[in-house]
Order: sequence, then structure tokens, then C-alpha cells
Amino acid sequence: MSDKKLLEQLRVDGDPKIADRDAAETFGWEKEEAYELFAEEMEALVELQKQLFADKSASLLIVLQAMDAAGKDSTIRAVLSGLNPAGVDINPFGVPTEEELAHDYLWRIHHHAPADGYIGVFNRSHYEDVLVVRVKGFAPEKVWKKRYDHIRNFEQMLADEGTHIVKIFLNVSKEKQKERFEERLERPDKRWKFRAGDLDDRALWDDYMDAYTDAIEKTSTDDAPWYVVPADKKWARNVCIARILRHHLEAIDPKYPEPEEGLDHISVPD
Amino acid sequence: MSDKKLLEQLRVDGDPKIADRDAAETFGWEKEEAYELFAEEMEALVELQKQLFADKSASLLIVLQAMDAAGKDSTIRAVLSGLNPAGVDINPFGVPTEEELAHDYLWRIHHHAPADGYIGVFNRSHYEDVLVVRVKGFAPEKVWKKRYDHIRNFEQMLADEGTHIVKIFLNVSKEKQKERFEERLERPDKRWKFRAGDLDDRALWDDYMDAYTDAIEKTSTDDAPWYVVPADKKWARNVCIARILRHHLEAIDPKYPEPEEGLDHISVPD
Repeated sequence: MSDKKLLEQLRVDGDPKIADRDAAETFGWEKEEAYELFAEEMEALVELQKQLFADKSASLLIVLQAMDAAGKDSTIRAVLSGLNPAGVDINPFGVPTEEELAHDYLWRIHHHAPADGYIGVFNRSHYEDVLVVRVKGFAPEKVWKKRYDHIRNFEQMLADEGTHIVKIFLNVSKEKQKERFEERLERPDKRWKFRAGDLDDRALWDDYMDAYTDAIEKTSTDDAPWYVVPADKKWARNVCIARILRHHLEAIDPKYPEPEEGLDHISVPD
Repeated sequence: MSDKKLLEQLRVDGDPKIADRDAAETFGWEKEEAYELFAEEMEALVELQKQLFADKSASLLIVLQAMDAAGKDSTIRAVLSGLNPAGVDINPFGVPTEEELAHDYLWRIHHHAPADGYIGVFNRSHYEDVLVVRVKGFAPEKVWKKRYDHIRNFEQMLADEGTHIVKIFLNVSKEKQKERFEERLERPDKRWKFRAGDLDDRALWDDYMDAYTDAIEKTSTDDAPWYVVPADKKWARNVCIARILRHHLEAIDPKYPEPEEGLDHISVPD
């Protein structure tokens, strides 16, 4: 499948129709083939990141959202390790602290917006404030309803000021989540990751899908698009995400800076 | 060479005798062999980092200091990429900002001390305040002389509170620096890295070595040791650094956390 066609298929314009998307989609790739495609994409990403970091005229922000066990952490490990860690800025947003709660919900987010030259990753984000907050009723509807506008405006400001934004919803199926939860429960080196409370969100699956649908539909814009990436097969997911990132880095089109003037006649003394 | 013997040779106790150390030392390794050794070390580091990040009971701080073109950036790329970027926290310390200068010199450093579970890297550090500051006379002797004590005390506090500290001086030869500067001047994709001002520090090479000697001798302690790593051959350097990191991560001895109680009777509903 061509890059262009793949990206069009993943990108959301309007209702994301999550239920109509196959979380196990592989776009016709075989597993081995996907590994090779991924390695090629990573090579291109490494070079693009070098130039982004040297250029320091723009940044890339990746917002990662998903249900538990959809693979947010493993996406970061797979796609972002291999890049120069000096230019990667990973920010997990967990339950807000007391200090964070004493401010508006975008305050802690804004602080971690990536600087020029950096690839920033939000592992969860301000979207939790229209997802878990809505589903669990942590704020009344009249409060979270206004947030779609805030978020669109906030992201537009970031984009206008040089941050390219890519928002990714890892679309895992409810069956695959069950499988991964069971694996966590069974494997001694993974068991610590499981909390009995993880089942509470699972029980609210449909409410979450409604909240995701609204959030994605209302905030997928030209300058801060949402992509729904099938996440049941990690190897297909990785190719999709690497392609999305390459597309946006190529759009930034970073360049090595011009050398200082007057270097032509310089020689290095012993 | 055994791990133990290698680490003893690199670790500094007293005068580092920089001039007596061979910056091109390879410890008897051939290049290909060193690549294999490095790959093995990285595999061990990946597993140790996973446990450190899960355990969240201690952190590792790596302080990197060196002359220009000694390979600080390339060390970070080579040794730290490959690890999970979510648990790696790279902090470059450049010329202090106005706000930073309005505080004591440890203020900006302290803010970036790694949190439990993280591997923090300082690319340059508070040591610049007894190196460039001393060599260029940015502060009088009576000011920088007191700093060795401050630094020892500050690092001891960090260590007592759970941060394992490893300080690495990349020992590049003056000849190799010349070679690398010339490469930067010649290669179009590297030329932008060169500043005519880089030659000013080179002209002060001996003063810098005196300042490094003092700094290392006065602050290499059991809980915050200095290592002088030969840096003319990147492939030998990488093996040395990976071994140092493995040694210190093994000393932390991180463990996966205990799972939540009561998981035995849990099943995941459809």
C-alpha cells in the first residue's frame, strides 16, 4: 500500500467510526515483511531526527492515547528507542498531583510542550480531561464540554508557533486487551503491571469508545490530526506509526544549519 | 581483561594522572570483537534498565565531561539509544541563562537530578563551574576553590537519598581533537557544528587538563567515583562505558515490584 493511501486510511476527518475499523488490520503485510519495512522507516527517521535536532526551528509532538494494554509503552520502546535520546522528550501524564489539580488542566501539559529540535511524546495527555474525566464523572458535563474548544485552540497556538502535532489513538480490540491482561497475570515478570482496578475501565469500554469518538471527531484538525492505528498486531502498528512520523518530519523538512561565516580560511593548530 | 580489572584501571582514586593515560588504549580488543562485546553489554543494560524503571527505588546519574569533540554526544547516541527512552533523561548544560546565573551554580543542576527509576545523563554539568569558570577566570579563585567541597557534599546527599552517581571524563588526545575538528570543517553535514571559538579552548588545553586533574582528584569518592575513559577509539570507549554502567546498575540490583495482593483469584471478564 502506498504511503499516501495508508495515511489517508489512518487519518481521521469527522467521525472516526472506531467500531468499523479492524484493530487487527495488517494492510496486506506479512510479519517478516513488516519488520523489514519498519527497519527502513527507522533508518529514515534517524536521519530526519538528526536534522530536526540540528536545525532547531521546529518540533514534533506525538500524543499517544489508548485503552490499557493497547501498547503505549511498547510503542515508545519500539519506535522511539533507536533515535538519539538527547532529542527525545517522553512525558507520561498520570493522575494529576495536588499542585497540578490546583491549576487548569492544560497547565501541566503546556509545561512539557517540546522545545525546537525535539520530538516530544505525551504518554496520555490533556485528552484524559475529556476521557476518564467524562466517563468517571470527575467533572460535570458543562465543564468538560467546553474543553474540546480549549484543546483545539491550544493545539492551534502550538502549531502556529512551530510545533507539528500528531495524535495517535492505538485501537486495540476488547478481545486483545483481555489476552494481554491475562498474559500480565500469568507472567511473573509482568504481573506487577496489573492492578485489579484495570478491570474497572474495561467494564466501561463502551463509554470510553463514545468519549474517544467525540474527542477525536471534535479535535482532529489540519494542523493537529488524529490517526487511528490498529494495535492488535504490534508489528503492523509499528510500521504505521513510523510512517506517520516520517510523513510529518518530512513536512517539517529540517535542514542542517548554515556553518558560521569565515570558516574557509581556518586551520586547526597543533 | 576481566570486568573488575578494567573498572579498577578506569576508576580514579587520587591524582587521575591524565597525561600518563593512553587516550587510544584498546585493552587488547580488536574492533570487531569490541562491537560484539558492546552488543552483549547493551543486552544486559536493556534488561537492567527495565528492572530499574519498574522498581523505582533508585536512580542512576551519569555525569559526562570532556573537551570538545571528545565524543559526549556520540557516547549518548551509542550507549543510551537502544534503552527505553521513557526511562532516560538527558540534560545538556550549556552557557547558563540569566535566570540560572541569578542562582547558585547547583540550582539548575539540582532541578534535573534523575527521579527514582530513571537513568539521568548530564552532558556537561556543575563541573563546568570549576573548569571553564576557572580556566577563563569567570569567577575568582576564592569562589571556585570552595566549590569542590560543595560538589562533594551535594553529590553525597544525592547518593544518600538513592541516586547512584557515575562520573565519566572522556579522555581524548589533543591530536585526535585536531583530526575531528578538521573532519567537521571538511564535511558539509558536520560543518555547522564547528565554531571558530572552539579553537580558544583548544589553545588553553594545558590549563583545562590542570583544572580537570584538580576537579577529578578532589571529587572522586566511593559514592560518586570518576572514571577516565580513553576516547580516541569510539568502539573501545563504548565497551568501557557500557561496562561501567552495567557494574553500577548491578550494584543497585533493581527488582520487579511485588504484584498487588489478591490477584490469584482474578479473571478477566469478556
